[in-house]
Amino acid sequence: MFKEIQDRVRSSVPLVHNITNYVTVNDVANAILACGGSPIMADDIEEAADITSICGGLNINIGTLNHNTIPSMFAAGKRANELGHPVLLDPVGAGASQLRTDTAVRLLSELDISCVRGNISEIRTLAEGSGTTKGVDADAADAVTEENLSGAARYIKALARSLNTIIAVTGAIDLVTDGDKCFVIRNGQPLMGKITGTGCQLSGITAAYLTANPQDPLTAAAAAVATMGLAGDMAYSHMLPGDGNATYRNRIIDAICNMDGETLEQGAKYEII
Amino acid sequence: MFKEIQDRVRSSVPLVHNITNYVTVNDVANAILACGGSPIMADDIEEAADITSICGGLNINIGTLNHNTIPSMFAAGKRANELGHPVLLDPVGAGASQLRTDTAVRLLSELDISCVRGNISEIRTLAEGSGTTKGVDADAADAVTEENLSGAARYIKALARSLNTIIAVTGAIDLVTDGDKCFVIRNGQPLMGKITGTGCQLSGITAAYLTANPQDPLTAAAAAVATMGLAGDMAYSHMLPGDGNATYRNRIIDAICNMDGETLEQGAKYEII
Amino acid sequence: MFKEIQDRVRSSVPLVHNITNYVTVNDVANAILACGGSPIMADDIEEAADITSICGGLNINIGTLNHNTIPSMFAAGKRANELGHPVLLDPVGAGASQLRTDTAVRLLSELDISCVRGNISEIRTLAEGSGTTKGVDADAADAVTEENLSGAARYIKALARSLNTIIAVTGAIDLVTDGDKCFVIRNGQPLMGKITGTGCQLSGITAAYLTANPQDPLTAAAAAVATMGLAGDMAYSHMLPGDGNATYRNRIIDAICNMDGETLEQGAKYEII
Repeated sequence: MFKEIQDRVRSSVPLVHNITNYVTVNDVANAILACGGSPIMADDIEEAADITSICGGLNINIGTLNHNTIPSMFAAGKRANELGHPVLLDPVGAGASQLRTDTAVRLLSELDISCVRGNISEIRTLAEGSGTTKGVDADAADAVTEENLSGAARYIKALARSLNTIIAVTGAIDLVTDGDKCFVIRNGQPLMGKITGTGCQLSGITAAYLTANPQDPLTAAAAAVATMGLAGDMAYSHMLPGDGNATYRNRIIDAICNMDGETLEQGAKYEII
Repeated sequence: MFKEIQDRVRSSVPLVHNITNYVTVNDVANAILACGGSPIMADDIEEAADITSICGGLNINIGTLNHNTIPSMFAAGKRANELGHPVLLDPVGAGASQLRTDTAVRLLSELDISCVRGNISEIRTLAEGSGTTKGVDADAADAVTEENLSGAARYIKALARSLNTIIAVTGAIDLVTDGDKCFVIRNGQPLMGKITGTGCQLSGITAAYLTANPQDPLTAAAAAVATMGLAGDMAYSHMLPGDGNATYRNRIIDAICNMDGETLEQGAKYEII
Repeated sequence: MFKEIQDRVRSSVPLVHNITNYVTVNDVANAILACGGSPIMADDIEEAADITSICGGLNINIGTLNHNTIPSMFAAGKRANELGHPVLLDPVGAGASQLRTDTAVRLLSELDISCVRGNISEIRTLAEGSGTTKGVDADAADAVTEENLSGAARYIKALARSLNTIIAVTGAIDLVTDGDKCFVIRNGQPLMGKITGTGCQLSGITAAYLTANPQDPLTAAAAAVATMGLAGDMAYSHMLPGDGNATYRNRIIDAICNMDGETLEQGAKYEII
């Protein structure tokens, strides 16, 4: 099932508009190119909606948000909604400041968001309107584990229904749900947490997968999550002595670049609950 | 001929002021360092002209342009013109939004631009005042091919004369012309299109080559284009199974770093028409 | 002595707020992660102080400063001072423009800065209120050498006393002093100057080391400088034919990622004068 999703990304080359942070933007662009999409970054209010118009999907990432780019997120989001384009929201650091929490909550309430991709602390912040995010990383107390999995899945499903969106919570175990079905994905490696921006990269490729697969957004989002995790697994298996987080970062993008639908289908470790 | 051009970059270490996008800025800086130049990035209106004054050349790249940086492009450009410094314009995404098209056209009309470096769709947009750019990549319908080469060269030559600038159009075949002579360069690999910012990097190193070689700007620009393409060829020849666009990106910058004038002279594949 | 400093970084995972330039920000984030810290980047005035509040230390880097981010540097700095967090200042390009010089001088006078990390030309600019910085690189005429070492150390010590801060001057020979003791560190490789942002990365990890080691800030800063230099040495020793500045960049971050306190202790080449 993931095979067809991935193949469609490579055959249709979805053009994705990204309003994203300047920390990880280069990796996001290269990850979107690697998976078969085509990225464009533009965040000035005078062109945000125009750029959305020529694209097929929109990726809004609030890392390094500011008073110039926040209005552009809304303008691009509204245009994307008018055009029926998928809109992904990555609420980076929601809970770390009032500005981030408020902006993420407002984006969710004023726009039709197709998918929210974040760590569990960011997602909890959206659910509760305030948070305990430790910077841009998830709070360990919030982590999804094998022990609390069924409760966590129930929680995320209820939130997805309430927000009327797909939610992709990533961490040691990833959950992707539309409120009804929930993919539980077990690819990925702890060392990915030592690279800045693996989450941002995943949000970018998820936007590309959603854009190329309007017929099945839930499976598209799950396939994107599995792609990132499997790329992390494959890259990790080739790590040599002396390699660290910088080389691992490159190897993950390389693995996405080389991944075809068949490899994804066979390597993805998931169940649906 | 390219040998002396490259040697002069390494011996003079030209200082290049870059007002450029935040997507590829790190790669641009490392590429300029790799070719023998020294980059400085500064885009606030309060320092843009001052920074230009201490440099030898200016690279203006309109990717992620915004209402703060656009006035800085003009201020820096005017100062560079006063000082007789070469000014390179990379019209990233011209045609993708009115803001980009208008800004690129205004920069060309209000500043004395030494060289425009872009893909064929961006260059056509400048010629026609509107465009069909597909995001930041060239439209396949516009591509320069062996079949339409002589017509394309005539078109670019006429445009260079009309705009009174050197134009470097890069793609599968690169054309670099001052309106009179036209270099046709056949280095480079298709996989370079899967890396974000190879064009931006080329613009940065072209600015360095122009700065170090005021006596022959056309050959300087052609040598820069050949350097980037040859670096792409050399890096490609060392790709191993599992390598993808991230490793290729690094290997291209590495190849620029290791390239001497002799290697460039021997590896450059060009004719002058 | 450096061993315990480094171990404390890895065991406490200091959260560092960075207001930094967009050229090297990704490498700064990955370097902080590599050394055992956790970075967050935020520069909008509406959240700068809030983000500082949830962190343990602050890294202010004036590369690509602008009229939006300068007020955020002061707001975050004041909050950090109120909370007793260490504040590091990297005066990138001080001397290259009036805006950079003035901003660096004002930050030093209005904030309680724990440590200034820069090249010798930037540091001289701070001492003299104006400078001869050649862009973002040090002026060769200013370089600290074995010949002028004792005079340079005296100069930096006096400046550290006068500014009431730790000063870390990095170059071929690094000096780290609180005005009393001065560490002279001889790790590092010339090729590090061909990578954009090794100084910025060092400032980021220095902020992390200071945050994790409030009991001994001078040794913490010296240990950070030695970590970066030793990582440069280790990475250099593994360079292969064809490797250049891009691969070297990655290998340095990898080396930081793999460095434990024991390795640092044994590899650091320093004396105290």
